[in-house]
Amino acid sequence: MSGIDGCLVNCSLAPRATPENDTRDTSATIVLDNGDPTMYESYWSKIGNKCDITFNGDNSLSYFANGKRLCWFLESKLEEQIKRLHNVVGNAIVDDHYIIVGTGSSQLMQAALYALSPADQLEPISVVSATPFYSAYPEVTNFVRSGLHKWAGDAITFQKNGPYIEFITSPNNPDGVIREPVVNGDQGKLIYDLAYYWPQYTAITSPANHDVMLFTISKCTGHAGSRIGWALVKDKEVARKMTKFMEISTIGVSKEAQLRAAKILEVISDSCLDPKMENFFEYSRSLMTDRWKRLRQVVMANAIFVLQKYPLQYCLFTKDFYESHPAFAWLICNGGEEEDCEKLLKEHKIHTRSGSRFGSESRNVRISMLSRDEDFNIFLKRLMAIQGPTNGN
Amino acid sequence: MSGIDGCLVNCSLAPRATPENDTRDTSATIVLDNGDPTMYESYWSKIGNKCDITFNGDNSLSYFANGKRLCWFLESKLEEQIKRLHNVVGNAIVDDHYIIVGTGSSQLMQAALYALSPADQLEPISVVSATPFYSAYPEVTNFVRSGLHKWAGDAITFQKNGPYIEFITSPNNPDGVIREPVVNGDQGKLIYDLAYYWPQYTAITSPANHDVMLFTISKCTGHAGSRIGWALVKDKEVARKMTKFMEISTIGVSKEAQLRAAKILEVISDSCLDPKMENFFEYSRSLMTDRWKRLRQVVMANAIFVLQKYPLQYCLFTKDFYESHPAFAWLICNGGEEEDCEKLLKEHKIHTRSGSRFGSESRNVRISMLSRDEDFNIFLKRLMAIQGPTNGN
Repeated sequence: MSGIDGCLVNCSLAPRATPENDTRDTSATIVLDNGDPTMYESYWSKIGNKCDITFNGDNSLSYFANGKRLCWFLESKLEEQIKRLHNVVGNAIVDDHYIIVGTGSSQLMQAALYALSPADQLEPISVVSATPFYSAYPEVTNFVRSGLHKWAGDAITFQKNGPYIEFITSPNNPDGVIREPVVNGDQGKLIYDLAYYWPQYTAITSPANHDVMLFTISKCTGHAGSRIGWALVKDKEVARKMTKFMEISTIGVSKEAQLRAAKILEVISDSCLDPKMENFFEYSRSLMTDRWKRLRQVVMANAIFVLQKYPLQYCLFTKDFYESHPAFAWLICNGGEEEDCEKLLKEHKIHTRSGSRFGSESRNVRISMLSRDEDFNIFLKRLMAIQGPTNGN
Repeated sequence: MSGIDGCLVNCSLAPRATPENDTRDTSATIVLDNGDPTMYESYWSKIGNKCDITFNGDNSLSYFANGKRLCWFLESKLEEQIKRLHNVVGNAIVDDHYIIVGTGSSQLMQAALYALSPADQLEPISVVSATPFYSAYPEVTNFVRSGLHKWAGDAITFQKNGPYIEFITSPNNPDGVIREPVVNGDQGKLIYDLAYYWPQYTAITSPANHDVMLFTISKCTGHAGSRIGWALVKDKEVARKMTKFMEISTIGVSKEAQLRAAKILEVISDSCLDPKMENFFEYSRSLMTDRWKRLRQVVMANAIFVLQKYPLQYCLFTKDFYESHPAFAWLICNGGEEEDCEKLLKEHKIHTRSGSRFGSESRNVRISMLSRDEDFNIFLKRLMAIQGPTNGN
């Protein structure tokens, strides 16, 4: 475990935790329950003023970006930089797709459900995703008890006797696995959530080319606070309905967030093309590789936990083989079926999200790998200190 | 009509239109259908760099603004400036209210409906507003066919045999009238939409102090492109549910938009307190007064149209009497019950919104008073040229 020790010694924290010397037991719980992507802050601090953007008082007063375009609130600079980045990375076909911008991809999930739900049906359409599925899908589908769509659970056990919508998250949240549709019914409509299909997380094996694809700047660059997502949509009528949803829901998307996102994506594309700049994806890939290596070492040295494994795949972007290093670790507690892994980790002041939230078992947890270094180091230290299930649980 | 002529001559356009000399008949339709508040651009251009805000690459990456607060995504700078502005203007009590920020007030309307709809009911709660009501209310209430709430139309004719939610828009959109609740049932929950309760539109007669009040920067300062609204909410549980809605719907609100809004509100408050600055509300009030004076002159000189009248009221902010100068003109065509005013104006290349969209008659139209000067001048010129209903309509 010298590699891990080395990392921990090199960080700003106290030496390796034991029950005797770990004064941090009295410190705050480390929150790795959500995927707040603060890890990328270090890149953006180093980039200096290349990414600065200034707004004057008289900028962007209007609701409209371009009233004549289908997505009338989409800033043309953002559209341009979204297209450019997908072409630079090679992770999606953009040229024959409409782009719809959203307040994060959550809003676009709802817009896609709205657009793909048949308007003339009496019963709400079933919405499914294979377990373990992103914990927000059931909530996003059902929270206002829509008569258009209803959550129908696991796609694997779904009885495909009628129309349905399937969410395909690839790489998957929470477990990082590359996915395909599983229902394969003849009345299915598919929403591809590709939030994590970027080179720091997985090999780019081909440009995605589906009817509805969702992306978000949060997981690509780390700018979650901007709330910018985008949908690539093939069918004009679906794109029009999604735009209508955005219009009723929020009358478009913040112009400041869009223009800043355009700047950020521009700098990222530049960093991939200009050898004088530090390539964002190489930088973030090396951070992820290091974190996963250290986590795997801790887990291997401990009989209680098991981690998901990933195949090595050829990445067309880096022209090299790469094993997935997902944004979340999908940790399995080996303490038997009854084990509550979230509870166990919480006792050690690590706040994670239970597998039960993802339609899976409570012996699994999802752990964010995107925290700041300090928190990640404390997390590893606390994980290392866990000896086994506490009595009485 | 010399005053109007003078204005038109002083603007950059050709002299008064007649069928003979109006070359602009071949030009584009003037869009006054929506309330795009571009009129205020002139103030913000004059303000110079006082309102500039710069974002660096490493700003605002996190989803969170303050994870310990009820509204965990609300930037504290924005909260501070919202409170300060309401205290400076005196139009709302803020100190015993929670502040929830939204992506415009449209999203907060939905959040309020979500929070105020009983969770345990079998039937959706009725949502009403007195005609003429804001045209978005039916759409916002019904667009995803929610099982929580349904649009029940005009509050005046509503049978109050059970729970209901009433929207009270004051000053009202579309007609600028000051409003009170009209149902007055014992199971009613009220949402006050106070988007236009600012000194440029109406006298500030007392600080509003209701359970749920909605405001938006769009109509206050003109920054509609930022999509920033806020709710002032008395009850903690309602505030918590509204925050939950925002969390599921869009995981919060763009940090860039919030921080820029904070800056804009700060400058506006400063402009009210610093005699060396041009007071924003005095400036915008004088623009509105001038536009309304010119519009009334055109309408008075024409037998076809009638405008809503407003009482003179004492304004606590300016310490003077003021007649309302609403953001929209509510124009009535005097051509009889059958008259379609939207159609008539469209023939003269003025795009307005029919009264039928507001639960009212099609002989009424709503016309935005907030366009850029050029468009407002063309509007007046075209209105002046209308001689009466075209044959065959």
